[in-house]
Amino acid sequence: MTAGLDLTSDPVALTAALVDVPSVSGTEEPLADLVQAALEAVPSLSVLREGNNVVARTELGRERRVLLAGHLDTVPIAHNLPSRVEDGRLFGCGTSDMKSGDAVLLHLAATLPDPAYDLTFVLYDNEEVEADKNGLGRLVASRRDLLDADLAVLMEPTNGAVEAGCQGTLRARVRIPGRRAHSARGWLGENAIHAAAPLLTTLVRYDAREVAIDGCTYREGLNAVHVEGGVAGNVIPDACTVLVNFRFAPDRTEQQAFEHVREVLAPYAVELVDSAPGALPGLAAPAAEHFVRAIGTTPVAKFGWTDVARFASLGIPAVNFGPGDPNLAHTDDEQCPVEQYVACEEALLRWLG
Amino acid sequence: MTAGLDLTSDPVALTAALVDVPSVSGTEEPLADLVQAALEAVPSLSVLREGNNVVARTELGRERRVLLAGHLDTVPIAHNLPSRVEDGRLFGCGTSDMKSGDAVLLHLAATLPDPAYDLTFVLYDNEEVEADKNGLGRLVASRRDLLDADLAVLMEPTNGAVEAGCQGTLRARVRIPGRRAHSARGWLGENAIHAAAPLLTTLVRYDAREVAIDGCTYREGLNAVHVEGGVAGNVIPDACTVLVNFRFAPDRTEQQAFEHVREVLAPYAVELVDSAPGALPGLAAPAAEHFVRAIGTTPVAKFGWTDVARFASLGIPAVNFGPGDPNLAHTDDEQCPVEQYVACEEALLRWLG
Repeated sequence: MTAGLDLTSDPVALTAALVDVPSVSGTEEPLADLVQAALEAVPSLSVLREGNNVVARTELGRERRVLLAGHLDTVPIAHNLPSRVEDGRLFGCGTSDMKSGDAVLLHLAATLPDPAYDLTFVLYDNEEVEADKNGLGRLVASRRDLLDADLAVLMEPTNGAVEAGCQGTLRARVRIPGRRAHSARGWLGENAIHAAAPLLTTLVRYDAREVAIDGCTYREGLNAVHVEGGVAGNVIPDACTVLVNFRFAPDRTEQQAFEHVREVLAPYAVELVDSAPGALPGLAAPAAEHFVRAIGTTPVAKFGWTDVARFASLGIPAVNFGPGDPNLAHTDDEQCPVEQYVACEEALLRWLG
Repeated sequence: MTAGLDLTSDPVALTAALVDVPSVSGTEEPLADLVQAALEAVPSLSVLREGNNVVARTELGRERRVLLAGHLDTVPIAHNLPSRVEDGRLFGCGTSDMKSGDAVLLHLAATLPDPAYDLTFVLYDNEEVEADKNGLGRLVASRRDLLDADLAVLMEPTNGAVEAGCQGTLRARVRIPGRRAHSARGWLGENAIHAAAPLLTTLVRYDAREVAIDGCTYREGLNAVHVEGGVAGNVIPDACTVLVNFRFAPDRTEQQAFEHVREVLAPYAVELVDSAPGALPGLAAPAAEHFVRAIGTTPVAKFGWTDVARFASLGIPAVNFGPGDPNLAHTDDEQCPVEQYVACEEALLRWLG
C-alpha cells in the first residue's frame, strides 16, 4: 500500500500518485481505499463507500447542487508505469483516461473553501468493461438519491472543451437469406452475398442527419461494422449477415432510432442487437448556463457514448469536461500536458469558487 | 481380406463386392489389390500397378483405342456399409460415386469377347481429396504413354446421360481497403464494407454467357462465395474481402478466364487464388461420334469440373458417362437403381461390342 494521498498537492503530482497505484478494471480496491481515506479526512465532506465506488458530498444548504464524477479504473497497463514527467507532459496509464480528471476533482474537493453550490463527488469503478459492471450504473440502481444534482460534470478527457450530452448508439443485425447450390450450377441457388448489394448501396447513399440542439451540432452515422457470408469455395452461399452500427443524435429515443434503421433498411429484416440512449445536452438549465459561461468556451456535441447518458436518463443535464486528449486514451503513449491541469482547474474555480 | 473379385458376376453383385471393401481416399490398397488380381486373371489384358492405380490394356492391334476410367476411392463412410439391395436399388457408400461405374467397367474388361477398339481400363486412387494426390494426375505426369486414346469415358455418375467436356473453374480474391475510425465519427474513416457495394452490384448484374460447343451449351457463372469484413462493433472497418468463383466454358483458357474476371471487376484489384482448366467436348472426333451414336442420347454440357479435364489437357476427347445419380454422391443415402447398371452396360456394348 502506498502512503496516503495528499489531496492538497498540485493536480499533476496528485495525478502521478493516482497513476502509480494500478487500478485496471476489477482491481480498483487499493486505489478506492486511498481515495476514501483521503476524502474522509476533509471535514466538509460526508463519504460513502459502495463496492469500489466512493461518493463524497457537502451539505452546505446551497440552493443548487452540482456533481463531479470520474472513474477510477483504467484499461490494462501497457508497460507505461510508473508515471513520469517529460517535456511538460505527464506520461503513464490513466494520465489521459482519466486520472487527470480525477485529480482535479479530488483537489477541488479538498481545497475549495466556499463553493457556490453544494457538491457531490463520485469516483467509480469498472467504466472500461461491460456496461453491467459499471459503478455509476450500480449507483443509479441502488443509491439514486446520492446522485441528485442540477448539473453533472463527467471529467473524461476533452482537451478542456465542453462536450455536451452524447449521441446514442445501437447495433442491429441483418440476416440475408439465400439458397445453396453447387457453384457450377449457380442458377439453381440464390446468392445471399449478392443479395446484400442493395443493402450496402443503401448504406453508401444514406444521408446522415446533422441536428443542432442547444447550439451543439450532432452528426449521425449509419455504418456496416461487420459482414460475413459463405459456405465453401464451390457453394452458392445461403446466408450473409451484416451488422450495422447507428450513432444517433439525442433527440431520438432508442426505440425511435431503431425504427429509423428499420425504415432505412427495409425491406431487409433487421434485428436489434443492443442499444444505449443518447443524452440531451440540457444546457438551458441554470446550473449548466452558469457552467458554460464560467468555462468560457463554446460547447460542442459529444459524438461518442459516455456515462453522461446515465445522468441524462435521470433527468440531470450532464457535460463532459476534463484535461487530456481523448485520442490518446487506451494507447501505450497515454499522456497529458501539464498546462491542461491548470487550465481545467482554473475554469472550474471560475464556476464553483 | 475378402475373397477374390468375380468380374464375371453381374454388375450389381460386383458393385456390392466393391462397396463392401472400404476404400476411403488414402486407404485404397486392399481394394486395388483385389482389382489388380482380378484383372491379371483376364488373359487378354496386360496389367500395371502404380501406387494404388491399376491400369489394364488390350493389345489387339485395333486402329483406334478408347479408355474407360473410374476412381476407386470414396468419401468417408457414413454408417452406410455393408451394402444392401432394397426396392430395386443398391444402397451404400460408393454406390453412386462411383463403384457402380467401376463395376460396369470391370465387367466389360473381363467379358467383352471381341471389342471394336483396343481398350485401356484405368482404376485410380485419391480422386476425392486434394488435386495434387489425384491418381490420374500422377499417371499423366509419370506414365503419359499409358493414357493414349482416341476417346476417354470417365464413368462418374451421370444418371446414364452423356455429359461432354467440362467447365473450368477459378477462384479469385478481391481485397477492398478502407480506413479505420471510431464509428461515432465515421466520417473520419472509409468504410471498406460499404466500398464492396459496387462490386456486389456488378456480380448481381453480370450477364453470364451461354456458349454452344459441339451441340452442348455451357452456361457460365460468376459468384461471390465468401465475404468477410469488420474489426469491432464500434470501428469503421478498414478491410473487406470477397472471394469469387468463376465457372467458365471450355472455350476460354484459365488465363483468358482470369483476364475476363479482372475486366469485369475493374477497378477492383483481383488476385488469382487457384484455377483448373475446362475441357472441350471434342465430340467431332470419330471415336466420340461413334460413342454418341451408339449410346443414343443427346450429349449435354458438364458444368462441374471433373477429371475429364485431365484428358482434355492431353488432347484426348473425354466424356462423363455412368450409372448413378450425381446428386446422391457424398450423401448418407447414396444408392443406385439396378436398371441403370443394365442400361449403362448395354449402351457401352452397343459401342464396343
